Amino acid sequence: MEEASLPVGFRFAGIHAGIKPDKHDLSLVVADQACVAAGVYTQNLVRAACIDWNRAITPTDGLRGVIVNSGNANACTGVQGVRDNRELAALLAGRLSDADRSPVRAEQILVLSTGVIGRPMPMQVLREGVPAACQRLGTTRADFEAAATGIMTTDHHRKTVMESWEWEGERFSIAAMAKGAGMIGPAMATMLAIIATDFPLSPQQADTFLREAVAGSFNRISVEGHTSTNDSCLLLARPQAGAAGQPEGSLREFRSRLAAATLQLAKQIPADGEGATHLIRIEVSGAVDEAGADRIARTIALSNLVKTAIAGADPNWGRIVSAAGYAGVPFEVHQTSLEINGLLLFRDGEPVAFDAKTVSRAIREPFETLIQLQVGSGPGKASHYTSDLTADYVRLNADYTT
Amino acid sequence: MEEASLPVGFRFAGIHAGIKPDKHDLSLVVADQACVAAGVYTQNLVRAACIDWNRAITPTDGLRGVIVNSGNANACTGVQGVRDNRELAALLAGRLSDADRSPVRAEQILVLSTGVIGRPMPMQVLREGVPAACQRLGTTRADFEAAATGIMTTDHHRKTVMESWEWEGERFSIAAMAKGAGMIGPAMATMLAIIATDFPLSPQQADTFLREAVAGSFNRISVEGHTSTNDSCLLLARPQAGAAGQPEGSLREFRSRLAAATLQLAKQIPADGEGATHLIRIEVSGAVDEAGADRIARTIALSNLVKTAIAGADPNWGRIVSAAGYAGVPFEVHQTSLEINGLLLFRDGEPVAFDAKTVSRAIREPFETLIQLQVGSGPGKASHYTSDLTADYVRLNADYTT
Repeated sequence: MEEASLPVGFRFAGIHAGIKPDKHDLSLVVADQACVAAGVYTQNLVRAACIDWNRAITPTDGLRGVIVNSGNANACTGVQGVRDNRELAALLAGRLSDADRSPVRAEQILVLSTGVIGRPMPMQVLREGVPAACQRLGTTRADFEAAATGIMTTDHHRKTVMESWEWEGERFSIAAMAKGAGMIGPAMATMLAIIATDFPLSPQQADTFLREAVAGSFNRISVEGHTSTNDSCLLLARPQAGAAGQPEGSLREFRSRLAAATLQLAKQIPADGEGATHLIRIEVSGAVDEAGADRIARTIALSNLVKTAIAGADPNWGRIVSAAGYAGVPFEVHQTSLEINGLLLFRDGEPVAFDAKTVSRAIREPFETLIQLQVGSGPGKASHYTSDLTADYVRLNADYTT
Repeated sequence: MEEASLPVGFRFAGIHAGIKPDKHDLSLVVADQACVAAGVYTQNLVRAACIDWNRAITPTDGLRGVIVNSGNANACTGVQGVRDNRELAALLAGRLSDADRSPVRAEQILVLSTGVIGRPMPMQVLREGVPAACQRLGTTRADFEAAATGIMTTDHHRKTVMESWEWEGERFSIAAMAKGAGMIGPAMATMLAIIATDFPLSPQQADTFLREAVAGSFNRISVEGHTSTNDSCLLLARPQAGAAGQPEGSLREFRSRLAAATLQLAKQIPADGEGATHLIRIEVSGAVDEAGADRIARTIALSNLVKTAIAGADPNWGRIVSAAGYAGVPFEVHQTSLEINGLLLFRDGEPVAFDAKTVSRAIREPFETLIQLQVGSGPGKASHYTSDLTADYVRLNADYTT
């Protein structure tokens, strides 16, 4: 395995601008030259101002920078929110123009916002913060980590993945960051992830590969299933040098590394889910098709009764089987079997006698809980990752804004 | 208003049989003569043994009794569960045969079970319990209340409705009981409700009127949206004397009283939701049609982020609007307005300045929270009732079986 390094051609910064009382809250990712960018965004009808802005820009091969703030979502902020979003993009574009001595347009800047919904953006703070962050742009690992810190909200842990590889003597890298611990629903590209690479791609390739990677990673996680107004996942890449692009083998290698990196990043979100004490992996097999398996896995993942049982290490497996039963997907109960962390509890529709204390211990101790549900003999299988539901989740969310 | 009395022709009992350590856990409702019965049952694919049994029997005009146990759901219990369910029906039929000196068949008895999933029924306890309960059958209000107590699981409060009225000199009554505090999902006829009336109906009328009443009551409530394996709502009624049936006006009166009684009963379930500190009523209006309004209301009702915000009296209204946004129903954000307990927070897509402390107090103090969301100018409207989500809900469910 190569020692991972940051992709060439990008600079990073993360600072405390003052949107939140005492934490990093403003990050920048800047491309030295126009780069390729693709994005996948929330499917929520109620969208932050930045989502419409970004959607109009990507995919592109003219991107120069991404500005990210935490502490304010700039969602449900009406006409003023749209104006503020544009001003933010223009602020960074202006600074980059001055530095380059060549004009950068606001439309070359993507904006990501995360935080409380429905409050006006603290523009005075940001007007000072953006120039201050520009001063701190750099290419070290510390700069990258400062940027990954600036996008956090209720996250306990910074979420990053770095990977480097060689293909026929040329070295490529992926550096990716994400945030998210609450308001994580499964029909999205979770809020927020930025993946930068110096692998050369066309805008169309970036868009296709990003969608493919998100389907297998960020769209397979949830905390409580509440799809946010701001979910965004961006892929920034070096533009192709010529029309030919990379050879087929190199593209395959990149796609597989992108898939692995996004899955590794995505899993960090429910693992750091608000109040979580377990990361739950749900594997459904034997369904009629993959879509059916996926729907069963998601339904189990969204059941508060399943999530509280895992939090309490309660071997109340009937909740898992009954959640599968209301997923709206046909399956054969008499061919259904369930294992939790390798212990068989239900086999072909009949309960299996077990020692409650042993099963409880097997759930309590490891951080990761593996639920394996077989619902027949079909070829359909799917996995989903979620967090357990604890009293701390409730406490965190009962007074988030007050 | 008439002083309510119990419907004529039914006897009730509720006792402690020993399924649970120290609470009432076995109830009977017995009709003196063959009566009409209709049922609405869970839509969960994973069903308790009693559901298939009851579904094969109703609607009927030959019903003699209902046996209800709490503490064990007899769900996911395989072949043995089916045998145990049949034995329970036969036990009560045998006792009634002896008392009548005329044969009562097992197929004239409905069975309702509620409690833990996946454990074998404690048949030894029930073989002694059913005859003991038969000894206690009676027609007093205390007998009815004992029966309503015997069906409770995690409920704090017994849930009953009694109503009497006169029509052209004839007196009719409805007496209804329900249980439910957790595993309450919106696609069901919630576990468990029994409505007895001495109003004469044909089996087909009973079935139609029950479905109509359930659609407007039990199908508009949720606690956490987990549809149970055992949900059942039964309507027991006096058989029609002749072919003609009741006059149109009297039928209308009955249907409106049935609708009111079921809604009053249904609301008691989220009001007593596990750990609940608020009953939340969600009213959506202005949608394209009723189905759309209903879907938006349900999506809001199932959002843990909305439910924790109400528990914490946090005026975090963005969670409500964003939940509406992922309901999968088109609406106009710029025509969307939101009020909580009469306080306007979002008007035509723009946030309204408000004093957080005032709104917080207005949410904290009353037990009932009214969320009114207008999503346009269409005719579609719908209501849904749910409970808030507290740390106590998590604690209750983290160690339910252990």
